[in-house]
Amino acid sequence: MKFVSYRSQTTIHLGILVENQILSLNRLYDLYKEQLPQDWSLPTDMKELIEQSEATLPYLESLLNCYEDSDQPSISLSEVEVLAPISNPEKIICVGLNYLDHCRETNMDPPSSPVIFSKYANTLIGNQASIELPINSNQVDFEAELAVVIGKEAKCISEEEAEDYIFGYTIMNDVSARDLQFADGQWSRGKSADTFAPIGPAIVTKEEVGNPHQLEITLRLNDELMQHSNTENLIFKIPYIVSFLSQSMTLKPGDIIATGTPPGVGMGRDPQVWLKEGDQLSITIERIGTLLNDVRTSNSTKTMHK
Amino acid sequence: MKFVSYRSQTTIHLGILVENQILSLNRLYDLYKEQLPQDWSLPTDMKELIEQSEATLPYLESLLNCYEDSDQPSISLSEVEVLAPISNPEKIICVGLNYLDHCRETNMDPPSSPVIFSKYANTLIGNQASIELPINSNQVDFEAELAVVIGKEAKCISEEEAEDYIFGYTIMNDVSARDLQFADGQWSRGKSADTFAPIGPAIVTKEEVGNPHQLEITLRLNDELMQHSNTENLIFKIPYIVSFLSQSMTLKPGDIIATGTPPGVGMGRDPQVWLKEGDQLSITIERIGTLLNDVRTSNSTKTMHK
Repeated sequence: MKFVSYRSQTTIHLGILVENQILSLNRLYDLYKEQLPQDWSLPTDMKELIEQSEATLPYLESLLNCYEDSDQPSISLSEVEVLAPISNPEKIICVGLNYLDHCRETNMDPPSSPVIFSKYANTLIGNQASIELPINSNQVDFEAELAVVIGKEAKCISEEEAEDYIFGYTIMNDVSARDLQFADGQWSRGKSADTFAPIGPAIVTKEEVGNPHQLEITLRLNDELMQHSNTENLIFKIPYIVSFLSQSMTLKPGDIIATGTPPGVGMGRDPQVWLKEGDQLSITIERIGTLLNDVRTSNSTKTMHK
Repeated sequence: MKFVSYRSQTTIHLGILVENQILSLNRLYDLYKEQLPQDWSLPTDMKELIEQSEATLPYLESLLNCYEDSDQPSISLSEVEVLAPISNPEKIICVGLNYLDHCRETNMDPPSSPVIFSKYANTLIGNQASIELPINSNQVDFEAELAVVIGKEAKCISEEEAEDYIFGYTIMNDVSARDLQFADGQWSRGKSADTFAPIGPAIVTKEEVGNPHQLEITLRLNDELMQHSNTENLIFKIPYIVSFLSQSMTLKPGDIIATGTPPGVGMGRDPQVWLKEGDQLSITIERIGTLLNDVRTSNSTKTMHK
């Protein structure tokens, strides 16, 4: 299944995405609640859905089957505002330099263990939302990434156990202000400007994705193909990364792990390419979907820090 | 005022700390609710208290005055489990190398702009809780820090405006696994092991703290004075840091900004000092309080990642 968060009027809803149509979980529940156990309650947000997923997913599967056999109306993806599928993860963990060719283009040695950095939740935006160029950067770049969504609490787990702790996968654009990133040495600030983590449109369950190390990944900037690879080229594979992180930090349901970006980012080009107002970005990952975002200048009316 | 979060039986409460006695906000509310506007509701957690603080603080002040004039019982700080005053900040932002002498002891040049890195909320523990040595590090170090707590949403604000966006201050120990920190280059993983951000005991309102750049700060390890400085030695002052961060990221109520640590950390000593089971740490910052934590080995029964 593919789960989305969306806004309709002023309310935020959860939905299931079926071929660009959204089935509202509220509506599914209202239609078929007599088929559910009495103590079953609808999750109120994506984090709750993920936390309860072991109990909830089988019921949602059966509701979805009822629905598909009916002729009930659904909502077109283009009719509503699709939000970041999850807005409040405890952690957005990023793995740097995890495609061998990307290391070469950035003139960095392949790491001997995963390079970990972080983004804050202020960066999250959904499909069709705008990436905002911050007033203090002139070198904003894109990075197409496969992101893992953690399904249950994980501490000190082995590689073999890791898959059991994964809920699903999504697409993330690890937008990066290269001038801030490299001026600081530490990457946090250059990676954490508002809107710097477009994500979605949906979180796709691991059952529906299958092998996460066999997925074509592309990024187009204004229809030009800028990044094209396959997740088979990941240096550190997903079970290794999940196990590695869990040695010191407890991973929680809803945590996002972005697995690194393939070659083709703007800073590795000659001449370098930086995002500018009006640019259109499109990231497609096989079996997961397409994430569309445009770029605009900051709408802040305040003056720059001096 | 000094605000604490604490657990009594299984419930988490908010309280006001007065000379090592906790006054429960619930109890204050029950006693004096007839003095409050009908639409006033008690905040359910510290983030909500901070979000509503402009409307709420004056009422809490007056409730506190009623209480102090009465002979109602209060709770001793030692009777309850004091928690991290806030458990779910969107961001824990850290400033590195912000005391000149600390740069010297770590053989690093003073930065020309603040070095920003991050911790995740899995690191937060309260006063008297144990710092847990992760199974994948042998070089766990301490860092006493003054932490700023943001009071309201801030984006692109000036240094002059910054104080208006601050709710208060607290103490944070920026516990750091030096082997992980420097092996990775990026500091996120070495800074974000579970329990690596003891914080509290209380968040003290800015009105009660006064000038945050005139506070003695000390850290004792097993009664030996290891760090001793004054926040007047901060290279980048707090209004500058808040304004600087707000240029690209929206600061939110409850966000924590740890302002850096003075000289004396374990890795700068000869021989180097690493935390070990049974160690007792005590950080005192003038006008804010004393944060006590002990150290224990990981209670994980799982085996190390291979």
